[in-house]
Amino acid sequence: MTKTLSAGRFRGLMTLADDRGVFKMLAVDQRPPIFKALAKHKQRQPSEVRYDEVAAVKTLLTRILAPETSAILIDPVWTHPHALAYIPGRVGLLSTLEDYSFKLHDGERWSYPIPDWSVAKIKRSGAAAVKVLAWDRPDVRQDTREHQDAFVREVGAACKKHDIPYVLELLIYPMPGEEDDSFAYAKAKPQLVLDSVRHYADDSFGADLLKLEFPVNLKYCREFAGGAFDGKARAPAYTLAETREFLAELNELSHVPWVLLSAGVGPSEFALNLDLAFAAGASGFLAGRAVWMEALDAYPDMEAVEAALKTQAVPYLRQISALADKALPWTSHHAFGGQPKLEAASEQWLKDYLA
Amino acid sequence: MTKTLSAGRFRGLMTLADDRGVFKMLAVDQRPPIFKALAKHKQRQPSEVRYDEVAAVKTLLTRILAPETSAILIDPVWTHPHALAYIPGRVGLLSTLEDYSFKLHDGERWSYPIPDWSVAKIKRSGAAAVKVLAWDRPDVRQDTREHQDAFVREVGAACKKHDIPYVLELLIYPMPGEEDDSFAYAKAKPQLVLDSVRHYADDSFGADLLKLEFPVNLKYCREFAGGAFDGKARAPAYTLAETREFLAELNELSHVPWVLLSAGVGPSEFALNLDLAFAAGASGFLAGRAVWMEALDAYPDMEAVEAALKTQAVPYLRQISALADKALPWTSHHAFGGQPKLEAASEQWLKDYLA
Repeated sequence: MTKTLSAGRFRGLMTLADDRGVFKMLAVDQRPPIFKALAKHKQRQPSEVRYDEVAAVKTLLTRILAPETSAILIDPVWTHPHALAYIPGRVGLLSTLEDYSFKLHDGERWSYPIPDWSVAKIKRSGAAAVKVLAWDRPDVRQDTREHQDAFVREVGAACKKHDIPYVLELLIYPMPGEEDDSFAYAKAKPQLVLDSVRHYADDSFGADLLKLEFPVNLKYCREFAGGAFDGKARAPAYTLAETREFLAELNELSHVPWVLLSAGVGPSEFALNLDLAFAAGASGFLAGRAVWMEALDAYPDMEAVEAALKTQAVPYLRQISALADKALPWTSHHAFGGQPKLEAASEQWLKDYLA
Repeated sequence: MTKTLSAGRFRGLMTLADDRGVFKMLAVDQRPPIFKALAKHKQRQPSEVRYDEVAAVKTLLTRILAPETSAILIDPVWTHPHALAYIPGRVGLLSTLEDYSFKLHDGERWSYPIPDWSVAKIKRSGAAAVKVLAWDRPDVRQDTREHQDAFVREVGAACKKHDIPYVLELLIYPMPGEEDDSFAYAKAKPQLVLDSVRHYADDSFGADLLKLEFPVNLKYCREFAGGAFDGKARAPAYTLAETREFLAELNELSHVPWVLLSAGVGPSEFALNLDLAFAAGASGFLAGRAVWMEALDAYPDMEAVEAALKTQAVPYLRQISALADKALPWTSHHAFGGQPKLEAASEQWLKDYLA
């Protein structure tokens, strides 16, 4: 069945994309990864990093990088109050809803909204889209499944109410005893990712755009397992041809346009991820650490961080933006059967459009 | 006192301006002028022009011209349902609230919102700003004054509630017996315009950006009264030096940034208006007929209209956009005392920001 779009979601999605309909988006809403990066260089605990340090770094990232993007994803606590004036009007604005401190229930992750933040506040503040990261494992207990599903679904209902696009990010995670950088986890990853997309692709969750991780760990892909990205050799878990098949399946499963996230992989691996994802039908990227993490090595020398952003992160953003010129415009996604149509494209729509 | 801006209004204003903070905006929300233009070329009454004809023309204007602007002002009836997909995401979106058919009470104009349209619906639909045209005469009866003031103030309150910028357009008009193109009306115009700005510049009306007409009729300005714009000589009502003084006073009176509207003057006169307005402190333009009206001479030959838009209107938009590079960025307006500040630029703002 062909999807139609309501006025606010149609316009909102357009403001996130470039003129061709491709998303070239940057995330600066990370919290623990930034806390860790700033702590590392002063040999502190992440919890010892001060609010104003994080705000200053996020403001710097925004000021230097936002002009290079089609949209930027910010958090409301550290970024919004300080960096808003540095986001050009032509650059779309996404705001994060989920709190970074999920709750662990025997190793399973339960997500919650940021205190005092809501879809209604995001809409009111002028952001064009709501982003939610939902931690997911297809093999969680029933109570975890119900909690996560209810969280994702409630946000979807609120986004419909306020007619704002819902960007749903899905991330799988290792259970206790599983090791992220292991053959077993790498081998299991494609099915975990695909099952997660299959589950949340149900229309009842209300997502308008999926932010997805690359479904394989390329470090365990036979063609790169010799240590192509970090010099460390690993046993191959799949081939590049199989990787393309996983991506094709993911693209089929995604009931709405999707973009790739960078999930902490390095710049060269992410560029390869993108190349493969675009060939499979991704409509762009929403990238964070792959773009700016290396520049934070210079912290606390903020001038050196700024210099690194300008000489490394900006050219890298331009490089992956050029790759994205091969991406599928979101308006051409199979869900729309040609091109997206407004839910009500007639003289009478004002009557039926409620507020 | 220095003005601060709430999150939604700050972001909304940014999305309307270019990277420097200058508004290069196009209006296609006109209704009677379009009805008249389409009727003229088929020798009909404006009321005989069909809905689909107007929608097609407005969609064409949007498709060809929106990419050349920093923002576009549309109406919700003829433009929105058909042209939304042609507005690039990087281009800001304003929606018109006032109905075109004001009511006449003994020659005095009373304004009303479009039926079934509201600030809440504009916000929900993803537009970045609300535009209202308030017809004004400083010399109206008390009942007219109260009606117009209540209308303007209610919209201001709704814009605050939904945290969306309020673009208030002020237009004076001839009373019965007054002739628009007359020495007497031209002579009276500067004080009528200035008094109107003085009145609505009160903070209680809640405007965030004023859309103002040029305070003199340049055809009656001594330096151009020989017929510079239309070949018709007129008695001079003021000098260019006096015109500059009127503009300086208007700029002082405007308690928020302001842009110039084109009000049906031709392209060369509007370019001169802009030059003088930018020198006085205007932050850009929100222009309509001066840009695209000549192209409608080719109606009903839509291919010829499109060709005229591309060969005349686009170059003209680029010309006045280049002029606007001398305009004052809205963020430098005297109301903000240097640069605008967010109402709440702290970690705690989420708590106080209600929705």
